[in-house]
Amino acid sequence: MGANPDFSMKMAELSATSGVSVPTIKLYLREGLLPPGWRTSPNQALYGAPHVQRLRLIRAMRDVAGLPIAAIKTVTSVLDDPTRHVHNALGAVQAAITPVPAAPEAPAVHRAQEAVDTLIARRGWRTEGNPARESVVGALSVIYTLGADNAHSDTLLDVYAEAAERIAAADLAGIAAEPDSDKIVETAVTWTILGDTILTGLRRIAQEDASVRTFGPAS
Amino acid sequence: MGANPDFSMKMAELSATSGVSVPTIKLYLREGLLPPGWRTSPNQALYGAPHVQRLRLIRAMRDVAGLPIAAIKTVTSVLDDPTRHVHNALGAVQAAITPVPAAPEAPAVHRAQEAVDTLIARRGWRTEGNPARESVVGALSVIYTLGADNAHSDTLLDVYAEAAERIAAADLAGIAAEPDSDKIVETAVTWTILGDTILTGLRRIAQEDASVRTFGPAS
Repeated sequence: MGANPDFSMKMAELSATSGVSVPTIKLYLREGLLPPGWRTSPNQALYGAPHVQRLRLIRAMRDVAGLPIAAIKTVTSVLDDPTRHVHNALGAVQAAITPVPAAPEAPAVHRAQEAVDTLIARRGWRTEGNPARESVVGALSVIYTLGADNAHSDTLLDVYAEAAERIAAADLAGIAAEPDSDKIVETAVTWTILGDTILTGLRRIAQEDASVRTFGPAS
Repeated sequence: MGANPDFSMKMAELSATSGVSVPTIKLYLREGLLPPGWRTSPNQALYGAPHVQRLRLIRAMRDVAGLPIAAIKTVTSVLDDPTRHVHNALGAVQAAITPVPAAPEAPAVHRAQEAVDTLIARRGWRTEGNPARESVVGALSVIYTLGADNAHSDTLLDVYAEAAERIAAADLAGIAAEPDSDKIVETAVTWTILGDTILTGLRRIAQEDASVRTFGPAS
């Protein structure tokens, strides 16, 4: 985005348009989250639509997805990498936004690892070194440690995995449907991150409905 | 848990068993996240298995689910409420753990509200004042604002909603299958919170597989 005569906004206007304060914009520029503008003098640069777009994405990652600044920085560096390949870009973004929990007690972890690996094998998923595996193992091992599993838990995991597979197929179809090839990675990143919020949100609304059906409303 | 002769652990032993430091345990006691032990003298109390269990749950909410302390406090207060009703308890927990994003630009929000309400109506979900609706609207409006939607996006939302419905039905069946009625609310809370991590983690692994199929590995 360096030298582009289409850029016509001064810093103050960029701030007003995006709703992000000038000090925050300056921080993002220093940290490399926001690409530089078109420098018109030693003390001034002009910004354009791509900067407004990037600020919106940063704000969404921070406020909607609740990502830490380090994860946001990794995502923007993937977006700004001209050599990026869609599959690798997705992997880098997944690694950045997937928290890897501290390992709880060993027996539960072994049991959870076995359950997750069996699930992956049963579905025939090709995966290698995905940090999300640790994340799932961590959550499941906590469930085992807490004794929150019961006769229905294995079925529940199967339902989750089947749902995840349908969703992922639709996600990738959505990414492949992006007509502007320059935007494929950005679309992939946006849906990967915000899709979590949409999916878990819809799960909660559906849970409310299922809870009324199962337990009835409180008197 | 106040006066229970089954409690036999001093604070130092509770810390060693749970892996949570003594200052942190004292903080949780002061804040009411951890119920008091059985006081044996003005300066000493004894703790038992329920305290170890609670500390594990708190640690999971903090480390695995990344919840802020205020949300954890709401969840533990629901668990400690003897008058709790499963349906209401689920609602209170959902409200505590669902972040409500700041509203982005108006036209995108209206469009997202309409899309979400249409989706809910089409699925026949009974829902009232669920904070997750705002959460989904927020994420979707950011997608619209960023122009990350395309011809496939409405289909994608339908796939998410159908998956959410299957998952929620399985979630509630899992909760109802809990044989110990005293544990129903804790099982519900644990799966609601950690189920997000499991589900989004499985989505990422399935995405990796779908991405290889769609785009092939990078050369």
